[in-house]
Amino acid sequence: MSQSKLFDRMIKGDRAALARLITLVENRSDEVPEIMSHVYEHLHETYFVGITGPPGAGKSTLLDRLIICLRKEGRSVGVVAIDPSSPFSGGALLGDRIRMQRHALDDGVFIRSLGTRGTRGGLSRATREVAHLFSAFGMEIVLIETVGVGQTELDIMSVADTTIVVLVPESGDTIQTMKAGLMEIADIFVVNKADREGAERVVAELRTMTGLFARDDAWQVPVLGTQASLGLGIDELLDAVENHRAYRSSGGTAAERRGAFREYELLEILVDEIHARLLKRVTGTGKLAAYSDKVRKGILNPYAAVLRIMGDRDVLDEFAREKS
Amino acid sequence: MSQSKLFDRMIKGDRAALARLITLVENRSDEVPEIMSHVYEHLHETYFVGITGPPGAGKSTLLDRLIICLRKEGRSVGVVAIDPSSPFSGGALLGDRIRMQRHALDDGVFIRSLGTRGTRGGLSRATREVAHLFSAFGMEIVLIETVGVGQTELDIMSVADTTIVVLVPESGDTIQTMKAGLMEIADIFVVNKADREGAERVVAELRTMTGLFARDDAWQVPVLGTQASLGLGIDELLDAVENHRAYRSSGGTAAERRGAFREYELLEILVDEIHARLLKRVTGTGKLAAYSDKVRKGILNPYAAVLRIMGDRDVLDEFAREKS
Repeated sequence: MSQSKLFDRMIKGDRAALARLITLVENRSDEVPEIMSHVYEHLHETYFVGITGPPGAGKSTLLDRLIICLRKEGRSVGVVAIDPSSPFSGGALLGDRIRMQRHALDDGVFIRSLGTRGTRGGLSRATREVAHLFSAFGMEIVLIETVGVGQTELDIMSVADTTIVVLVPESGDTIQTMKAGLMEIADIFVVNKADREGAERVVAELRTMTGLFARDDAWQVPVLGTQASLGLGIDELLDAVENHRAYRSSGGTAAERRGAFREYELLEILVDEIHARLLKRVTGTGKLAAYSDKVRKGILNPYAAVLRIMGDRDVLDEFAREKS
Repeated sequence: MSQSKLFDRMIKGDRAALARLITLVENRSDEVPEIMSHVYEHLHETYFVGITGPPGAGKSTLLDRLIICLRKEGRSVGVVAIDPSSPFSGGALLGDRIRMQRHALDDGVFIRSLGTRGTRGGLSRATREVAHLFSAFGMEIVLIETVGVGQTELDIMSVADTTIVVLVPESGDTIQTMKAGLMEIADIFVVNKADREGAERVVAELRTMTGLFARDDAWQVPVLGTQASLGLGIDELLDAVENHRAYRSSGGTAAERRGAFREYELLEILVDEIHARLLKRVTGTGKLAAYSDKVRKGILNPYAAVLRIMGDRDVLDEFAREKS
């Protein structure tokens, strides 16, 4: 089926078409820019919520509870679940995600896991693209789950309007060493498994921290306790998300922020597409291929080659001719 | 001081010049391609060894012991220590690295930590560049330490000729869930803290695994036990590295592999430099800036803009004019 037909079906609510479009995005099909250009013209007023935290913090259970609550309110939910982190961080994810498939029969929910096979930068772009596909499909809320708050996760979370950082009572030491990193990303803190020993202390520490490391904006980062396995604290968490949403839209900087984000996206996609086109040209008979051949043979070092290519109009011309 | 003067001093053994060149690389100075092009023309026969594994596996202690052994043999050592992983993975690194500074008075050792502030892909490129600076400086061995074996770490480790994966007896569950991922990266397995309970079982599991998941090449991945804190097993580890080195150079594919790696480098650096140049052109009065402005204002979506830019010879021409 052509991608434009798939797209037409998808925006009419065809879940199979949505699933196939997501697969195209995941496999980095050549058609992605065209598909996504259509998608961008059909976005709904979707709200993007990120959920991150260390392995074992109960993020998947929390996600499950959030879905249940949102569905009770009649809101449709798309979920992108990602694990870009080191394999050392744990392997219990699959089981959690299978458990979440209980929502599979609910037409108002669509859950998709994204693998980590992507090239550099690929995972954050794919996450954003799937999130926007969900939006064009008509989902009111998109939840994005990932492990950790390293650079990869920061990139992935850049699409989120509100980011929830989930910790557990055992995270005390982490908090001490990670103050700034956590504050950079969190719009809301959740201490899950709040019945465990040490929970109160961790909540108190986080509250002190959100005071000390207050960001430029006027948003006071809330610290909430939950027991996701019992469904406790979930309503309060959704209230906090709504508060942050209201805060964001009232700020007056929302349009500016979105504009800056689109510009960032433009550059990222452009560099990706240039990379893909270079990869194709690097073999064959063209001028770039000739440079590449010299590098492979050790006649020219990679940096010397780059310096020459960047000053060589013929290569860029060859590159420009491709599409015209 | 000009970068060519710095470079001349560095290859004559001036440590301060080396330190300043590393800082230029870390800060992504515009002069990096030129510096690195010189560096590539002055490389020594340096051997690059990667060391990775979960937090708490004792990698820094092991590194420390390896340095001591290598110095006893009179070999010079450069160390690049990186932590690209999630802050959740632990924060004990700084202390370890301060401890390693006991080698600071030894002219045959140079240790440098790299931060994670780099843009996407930036950390693996910077690691490679520092490793090659060490080589031009004359270091015989370069050790590269990083946490985890996620995609970022795989990229970082791509420069290593031999990669050591360090585990501990407690890593049993990790191994079960991560078989393929570990095998993809490990040339040598080390079970550190081998006096602890469960060490024998983990060694046995790894040996079974290296049999089951044998790679295409004929190298049989060894599994060694160490007690780095007591200096036990370090000589055997260095022997294993030497065996792998001999295996690599005997294979006949070594030159081919290096050629393919240089080609990979060429593309990576080229894309980076194009990205940097695009970033500069995105503001101002040019055609790219006009597209970008439309995207920021929401007149054009980012994907539609990319499709147009890639078909617009004027943009590429504007881009080519920059250097000519």
